[in-house]
Amino acid sequence: MGDNTLGTLFTITSIGESHGDLIGIIVDGTPAGIELDLELIQQELDMRKPGQSSLTTPRMEEDKVKIVSGIFNKKTTGAPICLTIENKDVDSSKYEEFKGVLRPSHVNYSALMKYGQYYDYRGSGRFSGRITAGFVMAGAIAKQILKKYNITIFAYTKSIGNIIDEEVYNTSDYESLLELRENSLVRTLNQEKSKLMEILINEVKAHKDSIGGLVKCIVSGFPAGKGGPIFNSIESNISKAIFSIPAIKGIEFGAGFKASSMKGSEHNDPWILKDGKIQTIKNDSGGIIGGISIGMPIEFTVAVKPTASIGISQKTVNIDTMENIKIEFSGRHDPCIVPRVIPVVEAMTSVVLLDCLLIDGFVPRVFKS
Amino acid sequence: MGDNTLGTLFTITSIGESHGDLIGIIVDGTPAGIELDLELIQQELDMRKPGQSSLTTPRMEEDKVKIVSGIFNKKTTGAPICLTIENKDVDSSKYEEFKGVLRPSHVNYSALMKYGQYYDYRGSGRFSGRITAGFVMAGAIAKQILKKYNITIFAYTKSIGNIIDEEVYNTSDYESLLELRENSLVRTLNQEKSKLMEILINEVKAHKDSIGGLVKCIVSGFPAGKGGPIFNSIESNISKAIFSIPAIKGIEFGAGFKASSMKGSEHNDPWILKDGKIQTIKNDSGGIIGGISIGMPIEFTVAVKPTASIGISQKTVNIDTMENIKIEFSGRHDPCIVPRVIPVVEAMTSVVLLDCLLIDGFVPRVFKS
Amino acid sequence: MGDNTLGTLFTITSIGESHGDLIGIIVDGTPAGIELDLELIQQELDMRKPGQSSLTTPRMEEDKVKIVSGIFNKKTTGAPICLTIENKDVDSSKYEEFKGVLRPSHVNYSALMKYGQYYDYRGSGRFSGRITAGFVMAGAIAKQILKKYNITIFAYTKSIGNIIDEEVYNTSDYESLLELRENSLVRTLNQEKSKLMEILINEVKAHKDSIGGLVKCIVSGFPAGKGGPIFNSIESNISKAIFSIPAIKGIEFGAGFKASSMKGSEHNDPWILKDGKIQTIKNDSGGIIGGISIGMPIEFTVAVKPTASIGISQKTVNIDTMENIKIEFSGRHDPCIVPRVIPVVEAMTSVVLLDCLLIDGFVPRVFKS
Amino acid sequence: MGDNTLGTLFTITSIGESHGDLIGIIVDGTPAGIELDLELIQQELDMRKPGQSSLTTPRMEEDKVKIVSGIFNKKTTGAPICLTIENKDVDSSKYEEFKGVLRPSHVNYSALMKYGQYYDYRGSGRFSGRITAGFVMAGAIAKQILKKYNITIFAYTKSIGNIIDEEVYNTSDYESLLELRENSLVRTLNQEKSKLMEILINEVKAHKDSIGGLVKCIVSGFPAGKGGPIFNSIESNISKAIFSIPAIKGIEFGAGFKASSMKGSEHNDPWILKDGKIQTIKNDSGGIIGGISIGMPIEFTVAVKPTASIGISQKTVNIDTMENIKIEFSGRHDPCIVPRVIPVVEAMTSVVLLDCLLIDGFVPRVFKS
Repeated sequence: MGDNTLGTLFTITSIGESHGDLIGIIVDGTPAGIELDLELIQQELDMRKPGQSSLTTPRMEEDKVKIVSGIFNKKTTGAPICLTIENKDVDSSKYEEFKGVLRPSHVNYSALMKYGQYYDYRGSGRFSGRITAGFVMAGAIAKQILKKYNITIFAYTKSIGNIIDEEVYNTSDYESLLELRENSLVRTLNQEKSKLMEILINEVKAHKDSIGGLVKCIVSGFPAGKGGPIFNSIESNISKAIFSIPAIKGIEFGAGFKASSMKGSEHNDPWILKDGKIQTIKNDSGGIIGGISIGMPIEFTVAVKPTASIGISQKTVNIDTMENIKIEFSGRHDPCIVPRVIPVVEAMTSVVLLDCLLIDGFVPRVFKS
Repeated sequence: MGDNTLGTLFTITSIGESHGDLIGIIVDGTPAGIELDLELIQQELDMRKPGQSSLTTPRMEEDKVKIVSGIFNKKTTGAPICLTIENKDVDSSKYEEFKGVLRPSHVNYSALMKYGQYYDYRGSGRFSGRITAGFVMAGAIAKQILKKYNITIFAYTKSIGNIIDEEVYNTSDYESLLELRENSLVRTLNQEKSKLMEILINEVKAHKDSIGGLVKCIVSGFPAGKGGPIFNSIESNISKAIFSIPAIKGIEFGAGFKASSMKGSEHNDPWILKDGKIQTIKNDSGGIIGGISIGMPIEFTVAVKPTASIGISQKTVNIDTMENIKIEFSGRHDPCIVPRVIPVVEAMTSVVLLDCLLIDGFVPRVFKS
Repeated sequence: MGDNTLGTLFTITSIGESHGDLIGIIVDGTPAGIELDLELIQQELDMRKPGQSSLTTPRMEEDKVKIVSGIFNKKTTGAPICLTIENKDVDSSKYEEFKGVLRPSHVNYSALMKYGQYYDYRGSGRFSGRITAGFVMAGAIAKQILKKYNITIFAYTKSIGNIIDEEVYNTSDYESLLELRENSLVRTLNQEKSKLMEILINEVKAHKDSIGGLVKCIVSGFPAGKGGPIFNSIESNISKAIFSIPAIKGIEFGAGFKASSMKGSEHNDPWILKDGKIQTIKNDSGGIIGGISIGMPIEFTVAVKPTASIGISQKTVNIDTMENIKIEFSGRHDPCIVPRVIPVVEAMTSVVLLDCLLIDGFVPRVFKS
Repeated sequence: MGDNTLGTLFTITSIGESHGDLIGIIVDGTPAGIELDLELIQQELDMRKPGQSSLTTPRMEEDKVKIVSGIFNKKTTGAPICLTIENKDVDSSKYEEFKGVLRPSHVNYSALMKYGQYYDYRGSGRFSGRITAGFVMAGAIAKQILKKYNITIFAYTKSIGNIIDEEVYNTSDYESLLELRENSLVRTLNQEKSKLMEILINEVKAHKDSIGGLVKCIVSGFPAGKGGPIFNSIESNISKAIFSIPAIKGIEFGAGFKASSMKGSEHNDPWILKDGKIQTIKNDSGGIIGGISIGMPIEFTVAVKPTASIGISQKTVNIDTMENIKIEFSGRHDPCIVPRVIPVVEAMTSVVLLDCLLIDGFVPRVFKS
């Protein structure tokens, strides 16, 4: 399958460049008969869009969603839905100047090696985080559909730099988690930590530097017995989708890396019959065993690296002159991308899980309200 | 694509059950004209097979590879290669007895929810780690082909429990790394740590418990500019493949989870011109930027959970009687699966990377020696 | 893969509805560095667009191609190319009126059964022949690339109704075939037959009826040894793509259906060494043996059914009242769609064959001029 | 996807060579809980196997089906089912002798161009019609499952050479059609025509020649509203599968090629309400409109070319000496392959349609008896 298409029955195809006309996504396989709430799609986009606060890039983009196909009489028809947003605040001047200069941990060298001199280097082109606005639009559709089956996808900032929120939240109350997150500029759930994270980001920004963090994602209400074994394990498909997001360097499910130092007697989640329902006492498995859901929340954490684009002087190479040089980049960048990654993680997770439920037959091809 | 097939041009299809007739793999898309070294395939299998030492399950399997198609005059023909090993030392008696008992962190509940009562529960059936013997055979083919292009894939035990080897090894000397690993029963590179790990495993085993660990994998010689952007990022495809291995709960590339607490100025890998070659001074990116290789070693670490099957008494549910119970399982299991996961990680990585190079056209469809 | 995406490495994703905002196509996997001739894309579109002559539907559409992504500095970047045309001359009034009336041999019943009442019935929505304008844009890209490798794809009208041109044309002279075709309103190669076909279409049109025909397609310059065996046979992939075009009811390669009444001694194409090149004396195999090209022209013929939408009174069912009724439809339709199918057949063939050559590695991922 | 794998949710992967150890198929995506009738699989195989009568190749193969995975307690588990048959009566001596001689309309040239000298040329290796024994085994599984939903797939010999049975059969009585076919050595339905066909085949055989024919396939009981639009049209997917069968050179649905000379008023199938059911009066659409089923029988006809391997002297080229030569081949071949193609056409159709119904959700992933 092409590099820009993902999924089996519910598929998304990503288009657009950072400094081109638009960013878009084609969503195929949506069940027919679903009344999409355009406002909700816009809300998700607004969570990702730049210029939300002093903590994000000053690039100003309205990111207004437009649906150009697949909807008729306000409902999905089963045809591919194409959603786009325009690029407006484009300033490509910076990129011409530094064309021959490799940017540390930035895609301009790998793109050059893959596509020759032909790739669109303006604002990282196809490799820009801006591409993920398309993911978010697709995810907002998937999320709405999953909601109809009482499945909620929720992500939040677990850490920025060394400021970590280790608390385990009760995911059964989706609405109050949403509220907690809305109260935080950095989309974390603990107000105190939130303040510390903001201070850290501002500090880093003042030094023209950047900082990474962790995003935790929790899926509630997902039924047991879904997902595939082997190559279609839920972990396989979620991780494939998550690593499509620029800046992600790691993913772990349930206890994750901690499991590597645990004993079986500690890590194993005992089964318990509670209120006539089979559950586990704890959830170190992250809701998935053998690649298949067990009815407990699906939980995973992803590591977001610090933005590569920083203003500090760095060693690098000029490939035109083939010289070792030092360079300071300017440009409009996020000191910390983590809060803006939140809706993207939710989006990719929603896309993967809806595909999984369509494959299973749990979600039918025509919606029955 | 089916749950049991992976890949685009170089594909593998997995068959077999733990207590069925055989375990097998169908490898499609192998370039024609390659003389496969059957001995090397067997060696890889031997690294994974049970009963290698007192540290592994006492199940005795010869795991003798047999190729039943795709080879003619000792060379690959371009046709699908089917490789099988027989199951011999099968003891299914234990499984009948505990049929209705959910096993903590074990797949018997999720399989039941997905397949109804029809799944093959003997020795975990399709969900057994034994399935990965098929992966290893496919990987051994891919690995041999990559070797012809001077690409080596090397994995080792980085930790067992809390005994961690933090050393960064020079991957340019593949042969001496191999030698170091061969000297260790647990497939680690530091002799002292190896001893400690062995002691830990034996201790855990004596307590009828199990223990997890970390596997690090390093790919050397992989050319720059390969892999896809977005959904075909190298991280996406490697992680999808790695999470197909039972017991894996996390994966990180380069600095990985550490990146989440780093600043851009720390994490960024400065470019440098050295011996006329473009390189990075360090490799926190793990050899991949924007999903595409940069010519540096591809490095990642995976978290292996402790084996779920332990002999210690555990709380669980009997779904026949729908009662909360306590149970002690016996059976033949590994106290620590990490050393046996090593060849499987190498195998899946080899499969993904060969597919990537066939898609790119770097590896041609007919081998030119 | 989704219903609206086709291909392995060179993929196309179709969007849009007949009476929606636009028709579009996303082309992924185009090699980087190719200077696309936009004028040629427009020319192909013009061959398909409505309102070209009195022989086609009176719907007037400019069908002006617009590229919204994937091009930078006038060249392909390797990123997905999104091409669109706007719908302008939309008149949906006729469709509301006949909503509950099944149209003989028309998709409104099958769409209803598949998508419930939610499908877009205006102008057949997703099922309209208008969708193929997207195919043509994608094909025009593939065609230009194939041309750089001296591969030409040429289709023409072989018959309308019972007026058949049985002549076998020398495909080595692509330019003169193009010229012959341009001289014919119905895109046939024999001027006399062309006149007869025009008369027939006008006659049929006067009776508010429609008529079918045959399209022959010839690919010249395609190298030997390409295509896959078994499920990726060239016939398999071409036929899959061709049957995606509405109104196609049959396809045959080489001697095709005639082969069913031939003896082996007649049908077999003897090999001959001519000018140092291995060829066959005749081409009843249609350039493909065992699914793989042999270096001779790839030849196939497709059967186009008469347009279902006719003005003559027909028996049918009103599904709202559940009554057998008789009905006369009006609306703007082609009395004979065959001439407009020509560029679509060329397009789909180009798409499939370019994908085939990318898979083979014959066409590299970065264009070397 | 690999050349040897077909399908989306119900997939088949083909392995084996004509003169290798075995022929096999891996069937993935079978719903769990189905009791397979092994005898029925064997019966289908017996219809295809060589040496059935004087009309077929004298190669004697028992073709005894063996299931090596995916079945437990006599039922499908949802795991991949691997079915194999051994090759026993292998005589490769003929092939060494003629290695450098191109065989007219035979795959040895295209295989050479694709795979270099490495392909398995013994008995056509992967390109042998014998491969289709694997298809038949997979089809026999799909067919049994479809039967549980009252869907029957039936094919018969419509013509051999110029002896054509034009009669339109009432497909509602599946059992009596089966009986008619069983009474004919050539698997046609008209006894008189059957005799003439036998005579023709014997005549052709006496002249060391071969002869082609037509196979008609009718699917009854297939529900309306299934199949996809555009690239997943039922015609697209059936034709892709059918052209995977060696010797097929054409396919047409419903009126097919005849539609090309019909008027809309003739070709259109009027809808009628009969017994409260929506039907069409006739079935020139072949049960499919817009790629989607309408609840009428799915009907198509395929053209089978005469076997390329004949004993008559033919012109050809010796590629070792690069000379034009004349040659007479001997070897064991069918004078007419048509009767043996019947079960293969049924098999591929069954595979495609079951996949279609799994994608739709009509057939669930766990069988409810």
